[in-house]
Amino acid sequence: TIIDVIENHLINPSLKDKKILISAGPTRESIDPIRFFTNHSSGKMGFALAEEAARLGAEVTLIAGPVSLNTPRNVKRVDVTTAEEMFQQMSMYYPNQDIVIKAAAVADYRPVVIHDRKMKKSDGNLSIDMERTKDILLTLGEMKTTQYLVGFAAETDEILTYGKQKLEKKHLDAIVINDVKAEGAGFATSTNAVTFVSKKGIEKDLPLATKNVIAQEILELIHLELKDEEK
Amino acid sequence: TIIDVIENHLINPSLKDKKILISAGPTRESIDPIRFFTNHSSGKMGFALAEEAARLGAEVTLIAGPVSLNTPRNVKRVDVTTAEEMFQQMSMYYPNQDIVIKAAAVADYRPVVIHDRKMKKSDGNLSIDMERTKDILLTLGEMKTTQYLVGFAAETDEILTYGKQKLEKKHLDAIVINDVKAEGAGFATSTNAVTFVSKKGIEKDLPLATKNVIAQEILELIHLELKDEEK
Repeated sequence: TIIDVIENHLINPSLKDKKILISAGPTRESIDPIRFFTNHSSGKMGFALAEEAARLGAEVTLIAGPVSLNTPRNVKRVDVTTAEEMFQQMSMYYPNQDIVIKAAAVADYRPVVIHDRKMKKSDGNLSIDMERTKDILLTLGEMKTTQYLVGFAAETDEILTYGKQKLEKKHLDAIVINDVKAEGAGFATSTNAVTFVSKKGIEKDLPLATKNVIAQEILELIHLELKDEEK
Repeated sequence: TIIDVIENHLINPSLKDKKILISAGPTRESIDPIRFFTNHSSGKMGFALAEEAARLGAEVTLIAGPVSLNTPRNVKRVDVTTAEEMFQQMSMYYPNQDIVIKAAAVADYRPVVIHDRKMKKSDGNLSIDMERTKDILLTLGEMKTTQYLVGFAAETDEILTYGKQKLEKKHLDAIVINDVKAEGAGFATSTNAVTFVSKKGIEKDLPLATKNVIAQEILELIHLELKDEEK
């Protein structure tokens, strides 16, 4: 009957028995106790992925930068502040995961010196020396055993070119490319529009929709790639 | 009767017919469309001041940096993002105010160059050149005619010394000094503990309390100083 089909579908979620690790939100890199560098990531895309993955039956761990969002149901959440803390947590949870999605917008640079007292201002210009943070996605790509590793690329121009370069350079299985300048897409909004590109050659535009719908579509594409591998 | 006394008190609020301008929250100074420089101000202290001033019958204008707080009742709110926008709005509303309280934590520095495309990262260190933003409080102090001008000092050490220097240097009538390292005080919390110092010589510790209570106490002290002047 129809009821049987629906129930069967509901009790047989597609990501059951899968372990998924997701990162979300920005990081903050302090200059002193008051000032810091950050970015416009709201964490909404990563939280939507975590929520939808949990709904599909996956065992979800969410490493979250400083955001004001509630923890989705059935998701294990670990809060971090800096790029270094994000790196530590992602590396620690990484080894036994089936799927890893780095949706966080992690700082690429941090101040070389972090003052433990408020810096007093003075006349004239100031130059802040910044150093590279660890490249989390590249490190995870190089550590990869059986994980299906997905990155995000937030770009403002030549988005497909930069996105595909990143896919290859970081040894990813797929990349979700985000034109943060497009209407309704990007950081602060509740909607998004992305292009999903996989190493195996899938290239699929996911047009403007809520971040939860985009999350469902991304997880469905990942699921299809994994099923394909299992054959 | 007691009822008359209470009603009389309620319908005769102490800041009736006063115009108050309050700034709150942090500012954001962009490096590129994704990255920016900001601080830990939550806007809660300035919003509490606006709420309590409106409750006391004042005509309140609140210039707010990027915060996630609701507008208090009977408060006119103007949203800004950068230090320059904060400067423009504060200068525009300033001339016909009775009381001006700068509770915002405005960036002292901003990047000299704002990139209109996302900066691509490269290996090695990076140096970000920063320039001074306009000094809002000093400018308002110098423009002062009859306004009672109040600043905030968020300090991490030698708080009274730095606070009093600021009171004098910026031509303020009073300063609220905040030890952001003290337990329960500072930016993210709902409580605060401050010292109110006026040009006329009042020096009063306002011990740990909710930001709304601290706001009431600050407004009461300002009110007393103004009444004293009117005698």
